[in-house]
Amino acid sequence: MDEVIADVIPKFISLYNRDFGTPLDLVIDSGNEVFKNVPEDVNQKWLEYINEVGFFRDLAVIPDSQRVIKALQEKYDVYIVSAAMEFRNSLVDKYDWLAEHFPFINWQHIVFCGDKIIEADYLIDDRIKNFQNFKGRPLLYTSPHNLLVTDYERVNSWEEIAGLLL
Amino acid sequence: MDEVIADVIPKFISLYNRDFGTPLDLVIDSGNEVFKNVPEDVNQKWLEYINEVGFFRDLAVIPDSQRVIKALQEKYDVYIVSAAMEFRNSLVDKYDWLAEHFPFINWQHIVFCGDKIIEADYLIDDRIKNFQNFKGRPLLYTSPHNLLVTDYERVNSWEEIAGLLL
Repeated sequence: MDEVIADVIPKFISLYNRDFGTPLDLVIDSGNEVFKNVPEDVNQKWLEYINEVGFFRDLAVIPDSQRVIKALQEKYDVYIVSAAMEFRNSLVDKYDWLAEHFPFINWQHIVFCGDKIIEADYLIDDRIKNFQNFKGRPLLYTSPHNLLVTDYERVNSWEEIAGLLL
Repeated sequence: MDEVIADVIPKFISLYNRDFGTPLDLVIDSGNEVFKNVPEDVNQKWLEYINEVGFFRDLAVIPDSQRVIKALQEKYDVYIVSAAMEFRNSLVDKYDWLAEHFPFINWQHIVFCGDKIIEADYLIDDRIKNFQNFKGRPLLYTSPHNLLVTDYERVNSWEEIAGLLL
């Protein structure tokens, strides 16, 4: 979900700007986590934000993800697999967010987990740790924190995914 | 979780008894869902109960499941995989219930899903629908509703699972 269909980065930016006036939106270093771009004394604040009820509820939808996923459903069994289990308060927010923005994905096709121990043909993910035990074809969805990774087939947008899989 | 490590049947019985005085605890027909043992005009009440906040929070732990799962962790990567996604309000209750009764299972090893599209060697489950696309060895955990099923290797208790897998 995060950084593939749900855009967490603008949310972090707006919260850091709100609380510290930190101009986090000026520079995001390639290969760095977004919270490494703020002064050290407040860079753990993201953990507090992300554990708050509501953090995941109003995230922006990544462009074209709704349209392309709907089209993929014609050809594939599409599952949303999110490592939501790390954050207790994310569970209901993520569930409601999906119901709002992806109402065409039924509950049978949603997985909230820790390790992604799933059996699938493709896995579109921004985190390479999720590819470690995956036996299908991994597709690395570009995000600032993974820009320096070169080991995986990369997709930069949902438009590219459509070109590849449809 | 339900009917394998968490005992939902006594909860249904106590709620039906509370609201209708239905002596649900007198007869549970083999092969029947528990809610088929009550008069037709109230037998859909279970759906209301199960959607309430709190339903899953105070369920009894199935005997020996904690001890045996702890022992299994010495030899296997043990995951809890629950079809929780059907019931929005079950998510946080199930998360908190696991934290209380199975604190030795970390978040990486918890999966809330619909379809159980998991890659694993064994799947201990009371619902045969979860075995349909499973490529490992399925173990059917005995529950009243599956007593007439004969197609799968059956386990009747966590003691039996210990004998089989430890």
